[in-house]
Amino acid sequence: MSPESISELPALWSHEPHNHLRFEPGDKVSEIDAEATPGFTGSKQDAPALQAERNERFAGLQEMLYANSRSGDHRSVLLVLQGMDTAGKGGIVKHVVGAGNPQGIQYRSFGKPTPEELAHHYLWRINKALPAAGHIGVFDRSHYEDVLIVRVHNLVPPDVWGARYDEINAFERELVDTGTTIVKVAMFVSLEEQKKRLAERLDRPDKYWKYNPADIDERLKWPLYQEAYQAMLDKTSTEYAPWYIVPCNRKWYSRLAVLELMIEALKGLDLQWPPAGFDVEAEKQRLKDA
Amino acid sequence: MSPESISELPALWSHEPHNHLRFEPGDKVSEIDAEATPGFTGSKQDAPALQAERNERFAGLQEMLYANSRSGDHRSVLLVLQGMDTAGKGGIVKHVVGAGNPQGIQYRSFGKPTPEELAHHYLWRINKALPAAGHIGVFDRSHYEDVLIVRVHNLVPPDVWGARYDEINAFERELVDTGTTIVKVAMFVSLEEQKKRLAERLDRPDKYWKYNPADIDERLKWPLYQEAYQAMLDKTSTEYAPWYIVPCNRKWYSRLAVLELMIEALKGLDLQWPPAGFDVEAEKQRLKDA
Repeated sequence: MSPESISELPALWSHEPHNHLRFEPGDKVSEIDAEATPGFTGSKQDAPALQAERNERFAGLQEMLYANSRSGDHRSVLLVLQGMDTAGKGGIVKHVVGAGNPQGIQYRSFGKPTPEELAHHYLWRINKALPAAGHIGVFDRSHYEDVLIVRVHNLVPPDVWGARYDEINAFERELVDTGTTIVKVAMFVSLEEQKKRLAERLDRPDKYWKYNPADIDERLKWPLYQEAYQAMLDKTSTEYAPWYIVPCNRKWYSRLAVLELMIEALKGLDLQWPPAGFDVEAEKQRLKDA
Repeated sequence: MSPESISELPALWSHEPHNHLRFEPGDKVSEIDAEATPGFTGSKQDAPALQAERNERFAGLQEMLYANSRSGDHRSVLLVLQGMDTAGKGGIVKHVVGAGNPQGIQYRSFGKPTPEELAHHYLWRINKALPAAGHIGVFDRSHYEDVLIVRVHNLVPPDVWGARYDEINAFERELVDTGTTIVKVAMFVSLEEQKKRLAERLDRPDKYWKYNPADIDERLKWPLYQEAYQAMLDKTSTEYAPWYIVPCNRKWYSRLAVLELMIEALKGLDLQWPPAGFDVEAEKQRLKDA
């Protein structure tokens, strides 16, 4: 038996990340310590080897999910990443999701809506991007922008965005009921760390492309965003699609944490290699003669 | 100077793969040695370290391509993979394309057309899957199925598929003219090696899902496929979108070869990190105050 199956805990974790990081009613955004590494007993030095090992585990499970879709299993997994600029969403995509096989990954980022998107219901573009059977979908920002930036910037009246929490819950309920496991990750970086990361983008010509002057405008609205995040977490962390709070000042930690959340979600599907949909012995004979 | 810039040759290659593997008029499919490792001076033992190093180069160039699209560069790269079952298309996707950042990769496989696809022109589904600006698109099978399986199985009359070679050339001409670099890879595995690989799929329950009884039907038509591949190469290997012939009996070789083809295609774009689209010093000041 592997240590994992004895302890139910992945190596170097004192608590199961999917329990330990889950948003609980009463949790306050203002009290999140972005510097922390909750539940992790190792250090930064342990991270590369552990990440490599867990990336393989993730990739193996991802392949099995994909394999099952070939035999009619319609299940999928959707990773939703939300966080202020520089929280490290891109790093999760590159270093965690990137461990998977592109064949089974559907990445989609949601920026400012296009005119066509604006002409539709805000969930229209979300629906179009949902992962196919057997796929892991990744939303780099998501429908939650419609209760975050939209709320902070008053892009629609309060009664409109105010109604969206329930709409989103109903939407996600249906997704879950039809076979999509949703992993919602709220990534928190401190204001000081954000300043450092933005400064780095301004210091390095190979990072200019990641910098957007609007990032500072958003930064200045952090108190309003805190309120919007708090409301989002309070109102949309459901039993069927809970939010996870991931402190992100230490990139190595946030990547390991999201990796464990994804592994746990995949393990929860109780995947096995699908049985042959054909007569194996008969096919062996056919092949012999072919 | 790096060895690469002195010799113009990547390490362990005696010839530039993009020249050496290019299909030339008169090349015969029947004479392809799938076991060969043309142009490679190293051995299988060298492959893992070299691949890791070149994967990084590929990933770096891919990021730069993506970065440029943020400043209005509309260019993209499209990798087209064709080959008989077990040639290793999936391995290329996993081990070569998988080195890239999911953010900038658009993978699409083309299986049997759906009723909706059949109700449209055969390029309809292809057009919908073209890579966005800054992206690397990957076609796992492609519009070439419409002159391969379609021809072999008489799915449309000869005058219909016969007209497609010119149509495809015109289509690709337009793609290239509008900023897409096309890398077309024809992957060749020998009949004996294919038998071995199909047998492995039948021997291992974790591989059953990759096996399809129809693979044997296709195998039995190999002479017809050879003709169809020959015609495809003869008629659609153009100056602006040439075919590359990649022997695939040795997976490690085929992966290294396609990796070099992709790196060369990306290098051909003369990418630099895009300049800042804002006043760097002014932004530094704004950040300081924010």
